Amino acid sequence: MAGKAGKTTIVDVAREAGTSVSSASVALRGEPGVSDRTRARILDAAQRLGYRPDQRARLLRQQRSRLLGVTFSVDQSFHADVIENLYRAAEGTGYGLLLSATAPNRPAREAIADLLRDRCETLILVSPDLSAEQLAEVGALASVVSVGAGVRADGVDSVRSDDHQGVVDAVAHLVGLGHRSITYVDGGCAVMSAIRRDAYVEAMGAHGLGDQVRVLHGSPTEESGVEVAGRLLDGAEPLPTAILAHNDMIAFGLLLTLWSRSVAVPGEISVVGYDNTRMAALATVRLTSVSQDAAQLARAAVERAIARTENAVVATETVTPARLVVRETSGPPRGGA
Amino acid sequence: MAGKAGKTTIVDVAREAGTSVSSASVALRGEPGVSDRTRARILDAAQRLGYRPDQRARLLRQQRSRLLGVTFSVDQSFHADVIENLYRAAEGTGYGLLLSATAPNRPAREAIADLLRDRCETLILVSPDLSAEQLAEVGALASVVSVGAGVRADGVDSVRSDDHQGVVDAVAHLVGLGHRSITYVDGGCAVMSAIRRDAYVEAMGAHGLGDQVRVLHGSPTEESGVEVAGRLLDGAEPLPTAILAHNDMIAFGLLLTLWSRSVAVPGEISVVGYDNTRMAALATVRLTSVSQDAAQLARAAVERAIARTENAVVATETVTPARLVVRETSGPPRGGA
Repeated sequence: MAGKAGKTTIVDVAREAGTSVSSASVALRGEPGVSDRTRARILDAAQRLGYRPDQRARLLRQQRSRLLGVTFSVDQSFHADVIENLYRAAEGTGYGLLLSATAPNRPAREAIADLLRDRCETLILVSPDLSAEQLAEVGALASVVSVGAGVRADGVDSVRSDDHQGVVDAVAHLVGLGHRSITYVDGGCAVMSAIRRDAYVEAMGAHGLGDQVRVLHGSPTEESGVEVAGRLLDGAEPLPTAILAHNDMIAFGLLLTLWSRSVAVPGEISVVGYDNTRMAALATVRLTSVSQDAAQLARAAVERAIARTENAVVATETVTPARLVVRETSGPPRGGA
Repeated sequence: MAGKAGKTTIVDVAREAGTSVSSASVALRGEPGVSDRTRARILDAAQRLGYRPDQRARLLRQQRSRLLGVTFSVDQSFHADVIENLYRAAEGTGYGLLLSATAPNRPAREAIADLLRDRCETLILVSPDLSAEQLAEVGALASVVSVGAGVRADGVDSVRSDDHQGVVDAVAHLVGLGHRSITYVDGGCAVMSAIRRDAYVEAMGAHGLGDQVRVLHGSPTEESGVEVAGRLLDGAEPLPTAILAHNDMIAFGLLLTLWSRSVAVPGEISVVGYDNTRMAALATVRLTSVSQDAAQLARAAVERAIARTENAVVATETVTPARLVVRETSGPPRGGA
């Protein structure tokens, strides 16, 4: 498809130069991030193919007020917290936000496509459900800051909390209370699910509890927590003394079922969530949870997005600390087990 | 401020003609909705003042792909349902959606301003917290479809569920079960709060229960439900046999507190919510609630928004039926009271 002047795309240039699309994008925008040798090869290829970048989108956007595009999931409590904090972080910067949502029947790439249709040059992706390859493709079309996701791609900024540390701290908290039988409910294919699950397995091993590792598969919803709790209560195996959940939504579903079946929390079983959402802090819930500090993530994300919009800068990775918030759903194990 | 050619705004034209800004907007766009006499007066005024509408915004938007602007509240469960359904409704229409959120520290007018900065010509406002006057002002700047709000303004499309009927049906359901002592928890300053509260008072009167009317003031959050339930349980007055809540979030807060205080639902007290959100359907919640049918509202809203974008049409009002969904939190009153 390459070679026809005026119809050449950046994909043709990358193929001709034998590089990734994101490297080609970085080189053609004159940004640092590729070696001099690679840059020369890409510029050569672009010249040979008669490549001309589409300046129209950029010009149209510059005529307009400054707006950052944001994708998020409409049914994740943590994302709502991040969105609220992104607005706070953008106050007084002269930038506004335009949002595009993902939903069960609407994958991240569709949410991103709407922002690109609107000529957004800079995108903030809240926990995007994208592979490294897909993320790199988006990064070739716009400046991208990913928030709260473990996946990294060349040229894409990453702002995330230290989820590994967060899970390690949660396990240490339970072990410190005397728990040994600690079961983990994972988030299925959710973003960060693998990182948190691996951290749990590693932490259990570090405490000499490798033989107690038990992972139940879930998805990041209250429905999943309800379902998993039913499985645990009705199963043949003895109940663990503590459950650590991939997120607060699962933990909340667990609590609803445990309460409805009159299983005392934390007397019979401790429950620990992740994300420290609004519901965790409710007076009648008081869920022990790990905070990602949405405010801090949001401030860093807006700062990086503006930097990427205004200057040609290298993509960076920002990792903020996780913080365990101990409330009333965790306590010593039953019978001092 | 009027009279200087080239600087005259639509506000000047309306003042000169002695009409509302929205009437001036309708007349100047050549849309039906004002009398011939009023239109003539407005066009005269515009000519006298040398008024020239800003065509640049319109042209810029037309060069771009078709996008509808949507405002919603990031912390209302029902809004998340509406957003999911708006995306479904927009599929295959050739239109995309751009969202702008309201939050506790971000009023509707700021959310709307970001969409207008992006030159959105047509806005869908999900339960906007605006007075009739404020809504009319927005309607003068863009084509507007308001969803799930009772406030009406000239030139603004309204798509809403029949909330009056919804509350009347919920009261009839409880009275049919034998309840007389039915307390209502309102939504404070929330959109639709007054309409639903008035419907409760009217329905109680119609059942000869005017002396049982009791309204507790709340706000549309789980926190408020938790707080109100505490007040009820710790108060001097006897517990009602049923509580009807402004929305599911309040009802859910009530349930959490009742469960944690071991008050049987519905054995001791029935609880009915409003909005039929995802949480209401959870296997361990099973909340009786009134459905606004978010899918139907979303389809009507997208249809009206596209009609307003593509043709010069008169604003209409669409009212969809409310539907009571009986689950397990409502039953006969304690002791056959």
